[in-house]
Amino acid sequence: MKAVRLHVYGKRPTVEEVADPKITGALDVIVRIGGAGLCRTDLHIIEGQWRDISRVQLPYTLGHENSGWVHAVGSAVDNVAVGDAVIVHPLITCGLCRNCRAGNDMHCARGVFPGIFGADGGMAGFLKTGARAVIKLAPGIRPQDVAAMADAGLSAIHPVKLAALAGFLYPGANVLVIGAGGLAHIGIQCLKALGAATVIAAARSDASLALARSSGADQTVKVDGTQVARIMELTGGAGCEVVFDFVAEGGALEWGYEVLRQAGTYYIIGYGGVVKVPAIDFVAKEINYNGSLVGTYNELAELMTLNAQGRVTLQTKTYPLEAVNDAIDDLDHGRLHGRGILIPSAA
Amino acid sequence: MKAVRLHVYGKRPTVEEVADPKITGALDVIVRIGGAGLCRTDLHIIEGQWRDISRVQLPYTLGHENSGWVHAVGSAVDNVAVGDAVIVHPLITCGLCRNCRAGNDMHCARGVFPGIFGADGGMAGFLKTGARAVIKLAPGIRPQDVAAMADAGLSAIHPVKLAALAGFLYPGANVLVIGAGGLAHIGIQCLKALGAATVIAAARSDASLALARSSGADQTVKVDGTQVARIMELTGGAGCEVVFDFVAEGGALEWGYEVLRQAGTYYIIGYGGVVKVPAIDFVAKEINYNGSLVGTYNELAELMTLNAQGRVTLQTKTYPLEAVNDAIDDLDHGRLHGRGILIPSAA
Amino acid sequence: MKAVRLHVYGKRPTVEEVADPKITGALDVIVRIGGAGLCRTDLHIIEGQWRDISRVQLPYTLGHENSGWVHAVGSAVDNVAVGDAVIVHPLITCGLCRNCRAGNDMHCARGVFPGIFGADGGMAGFLKTGARAVIKLAPGIRPQDVAAMADAGLSAIHPVKLAALAGFLYPGANVLVIGAGGLAHIGIQCLKALGAATVIAAARSDASLALARSSGADQTVKVDGTQVARIMELTGGAGCEVVFDFVAEGGALEWGYEVLRQAGTYYIIGYGGVVKVPAIDFVAKEINYNGSLVGTYNELAELMTLNAQGRVTLQTKTYPLEAVNDAIDDLDHGRLHGRGILIPSAA
Amino acid sequence: MKAVRLHVYGKRPTVEEVADPKITGALDVIVRIGGAGLCRTDLHIIEGQWRDISRVQLPYTLGHENSGWVHAVGSAVDNVAVGDAVIVHPLITCGLCRNCRAGNDMHCARGVFPGIFGADGGMAGFLKTGARAVIKLAPGIRPQDVAAMADAGLSAIHPVKLAALAGFLYPGANVLVIGAGGLAHIGIQCLKALGAATVIAAARSDASLALARSSGADQTVKVDGTQVARIMELTGGAGCEVVFDFVAEGGALEWGYEVLRQAGTYYIIGYGGVVKVPAIDFVAKEINYNGSLVGTYNELAELMTLNAQGRVTLQTKTYPLEAVNDAIDDLDHGRLHGRGILIPSAA
Repeated sequence: MKAVRLHVYGKRPTVEEVADPKITGALDVIVRIGGAGLCRTDLHIIEGQWRDISRVQLPYTLGHENSGWVHAVGSAVDNVAVGDAVIVHPLITCGLCRNCRAGNDMHCARGVFPGIFGADGGMAGFLKTGARAVIKLAPGIRPQDVAAMADAGLSAIHPVKLAALAGFLYPGANVLVIGAGGLAHIGIQCLKALGAATVIAAARSDASLALARSSGADQTVKVDGTQVARIMELTGGAGCEVVFDFVAEGGALEWGYEVLRQAGTYYIIGYGGVVKVPAIDFVAKEINYNGSLVGTYNELAELMTLNAQGRVTLQTKTYPLEAVNDAIDDLDHGRLHGRGILIPSAA
Repeated sequence: MKAVRLHVYGKRPTVEEVADPKITGALDVIVRIGGAGLCRTDLHIIEGQWRDISRVQLPYTLGHENSGWVHAVGSAVDNVAVGDAVIVHPLITCGLCRNCRAGNDMHCARGVFPGIFGADGGMAGFLKTGARAVIKLAPGIRPQDVAAMADAGLSAIHPVKLAALAGFLYPGANVLVIGAGGLAHIGIQCLKALGAATVIAAARSDASLALARSSGADQTVKVDGTQVARIMELTGGAGCEVVFDFVAEGGALEWGYEVLRQAGTYYIIGYGGVVKVPAIDFVAKEINYNGSLVGTYNELAELMTLNAQGRVTLQTKTYPLEAVNDAIDDLDHGRLHGRGILIPSAA
Repeated sequence: MKAVRLHVYGKRPTVEEVADPKITGALDVIVRIGGAGLCRTDLHIIEGQWRDISRVQLPYTLGHENSGWVHAVGSAVDNVAVGDAVIVHPLITCGLCRNCRAGNDMHCARGVFPGIFGADGGMAGFLKTGARAVIKLAPGIRPQDVAAMADAGLSAIHPVKLAALAGFLYPGANVLVIGAGGLAHIGIQCLKALGAATVIAAARSDASLALARSSGADQTVKVDGTQVARIMELTGGAGCEVVFDFVAEGGALEWGYEVLRQAGTYYIIGYGGVVKVPAIDFVAKEINYNGSLVGTYNELAELMTLNAQGRVTLQTKTYPLEAVNDAIDDLDHGRLHGRGILIPSAA
Repeated sequence: MKAVRLHVYGKRPTVEEVADPKITGALDVIVRIGGAGLCRTDLHIIEGQWRDISRVQLPYTLGHENSGWVHAVGSAVDNVAVGDAVIVHPLITCGLCRNCRAGNDMHCARGVFPGIFGADGGMAGFLKTGARAVIKLAPGIRPQDVAAMADAGLSAIHPVKLAALAGFLYPGANVLVIGAGGLAHIGIQCLKALGAATVIAAARSDASLALARSSGADQTVKVDGTQVARIMELTGGAGCEVVFDFVAEGGALEWGYEVLRQAGTYYIIGYGGVVKVPAIDFVAKEINYNGSLVGTYNELAELMTLNAQGRVTLQTKTYPLEAVNDAIDDLDHGRLHGRGILIPSAA
């Protein structure tokens, strides 16, 4: 099969022929890829930001946002059958450790994250995953149309669910979404579906702000140096109960802090920058900084329900798998609004 | 009355005669002070760390940790009567804003924090506070013996309650307490009373470690450069589910981060240092940094119940009010184990 | 002033002249009534169902759902001023007991519930309440248009908030609303605003089902003997995660149980019937029956925000105060769709 | 192997020879039984109370509380190995449904409960269970000493955990434990380990009250007709925040209701009686009745940690497997204090 392979940090991946994956374990599932999303994390992986965290052996296949059809299953798999259209939760999990038993799939003690660490990803003809990772699509849903839900969508709904269950999204609360790209435009839709807070979206380009508005943002604010003053004005001088930072680099962490109100919570979903906050400010304002890492299997299932109900939709642009570097160029230069989806020729 | 007055940042306070406070509002309560605790925050106030946060007008009276007897009450006060022994919640609150109505006294929209901002504190013969701040002592409890519960105790029980309600303190969980002084030794007792986790206490001096052990710590670790390795060993290489950092300066924030496990939560109660954590680490480990600011009225009431039951006790050392600067010297030079309590001559 | 007075259980109230209320406490607030809602509870009070619970002395003034304008305030009131348009939380609370300090106004240790117990209600020219009970209306909102929010609305949003915070209202969850009258039509709107579950409404009349649909119900089911089979079919044979029973008499409790799924929760908001469930069924299905009593001050404030945003609206019918018994007739005979509002002549 | 077989409802089981279980699935685990607990539910099964709920085909093997050593494993099992000492969670679960993915093992959509429904139980030489059900014992722990943790212990810790996480077990809260037998004496120990509430235990016999006291109850009350008055006196007239009813028959549900305070929660763990509470009382007191069904895998793991730490211990009496009917006699006639454990001859 064809696969997008990273050979050297700092250099673009290449599309080349590799062996198809084989079933080796009783709970293995092989998925014929219908669509593999391109994520800013892929850029960060190429740059080497994940080198010391993932400790993966090069070369390997990128792609952690996948959807397709079940192609083969191990002997103990009974929740999906060959031919089923599925979306793939990004982690392969053991199901037996304390975190798995509590539903926290992303913290599985033996977790593997194909395309990030531990196994080849899905920018390829086929992906090997596990029975615990696949969710059947509702009738009529095409894999390529929902692939981006597997990571961008999941990473967006997860902090929104956490905030909703914590009681932060009450009527009258002001929440800020920094960014309006692949993840954030899903986050905004999730905020409107799962909570009752007023949503302020902040982004740099007019195109992004338009996407934020069409995604349901109540207010949009251009990030042009006046955004702090504008947001304080929109919130009656108090600032925001919650900040969802889908950018977390290029100054976002710094100005985002300025609009976080007393007792507020700052979710970090994007990355690249460094949180630098004096301990006295944590104490005097009693604020929280909470990291967010993909999400749970049940959250992905809920997101797919919202999608099937038409309440969360995706803006995507498709590319042939072979054109992965064109997609990367578009993403890197801000020409990609919504999410880029790579489609293998056999899909 | 005599009062401990701060005139200039960077200079020691002086003990001088000032006018007694008077009842002016229907919900005012004036407390004759039986004991006023000395807090590291008082040192930080003197140093000027709170100058820009509290924006208080100098000179003013220090002392935010108070207990005594009701001396006079406003016309609408019916929950305490003159002569009642009481402990004083550190904030005067409106009772009407959203935060007060949710029990979050420390975030009252019109809150005043006597001794920190908005009003004179309790290192004096009398303190003016409000009906919403006073809690009657159980029979037989002397104000001077419990004054330190009002801030040190409350600041210790608050993050422990948050962690308990979040499910972090389950049997088998490892939690780290950094520090074993005035706050931390109460925090350790609260951890044993409210949760079932294994408590590891880390401190610099043998005396502190002994206090941690007598407070109930399951393990103690000396902060001497080997503590990270030692804690990782104690936790089977995984690190701690929760860190309660009662120090948060002098390197604690840096080494504390190294023992925070995947999906862990770091409570910041002390201050002085700066949290510096790359966003990618927040994301990849999905960790939380949560500030903690005193606590609620109900938490203080619960702490007083634990104290009356003999389950949380205090190590204190008393000084006459006039000897405030001796107490400060002792605290500043690490000679004060437990909490220093100032006692006015009339108490 | 004119007031609706109950003299004898089992007999209709009469409209008669009584003395205006006077300010006697520092935190008293007297409201000139703009609208007083008529509630099924008023019928139950007249019938004597509350005799042993409320232990009120007859005669007294009915009316626990009130809105109007501030007419006079006690000396310590500073959150509202004479002339302010306000809605009135149904309880007068102390603000000092553990429940008040945790936000649970309805469980105030010294709580008074004007119109139910402890004080005269608001079916009158004026109502005496307290500073802790009043919420200012947004500009342009008329008291008579929102009076029903004070009890019907609050009693509807409260269990919905509890369910939302418990995580019961996730995408794909099925929740059943029994009834589609004064409370339930608000409950349905709150479910759509605060959660993402699929809402099934069940009622006896076509007019009620139409109101349910216009309030946002995803499915409606007629209560005609086939409703259990129909709801099981709509839920794929599993039944409902949550039942909100706004009726709880006339058989509702019995058939509602039959559609409650494994691990489901049954909120009791209406009353009149008796819950009879074998303990073995509680255990084998691990189900919950949770009572619901009005709600908190903050919940009423959030509801008023939803109303000001146009997301929760009311169907009402107005009557002059003097026509209270016509309104009772209409309610008793099922001719009142939405909520009946009594308007004093001076409003 | 020998097994305790139920042939007819209403008649005692017989001990007879049946075929050993065989591995048929990749995730199967066969446990050589070291101890199988006898539960009041076994009596209720024999009486026929579970006939319509479990719909099991007679004859079958009783025993849902098991511990032993791994005897054989399926091809995909890698969390335990032959020879490991293990305790067995009472359900065999799929690990793939929404409930499993949220940790709610007892609500698995395809769950099997050996000894209750779907499969033969563990009062036998061997038990067939699954990889998701087994928890390794700490070194030095003997299966027969902890078998009762698998159901009695788990059913006791589960509602205590729910109450703790809901914030009900705060210092000063009064909680009532009805019963002081096999489950309740573990429940009392869990209450002391996981919470800070004052524990009142009520039982009929002096021996039970003595067991309650040695388990850590703060107060004990004899159930002799004066218990309601006594408990109201102990709680200052207010009643209890929480009732854990481990009996729920023979009048317990009726008198337990009388001591449940405003906004209180009643956990039903025992069964036999019927909850009969007017809806108006659910509403006016805003009380909750919550069923409790065994518990989660993680809860059982936590309980085993508390046991290994010496904080929760068991009172047991052993019988040879063949003496099952003697054990039943002792349980039925109140001669069994603590839990009866059946031991196969090969153990």
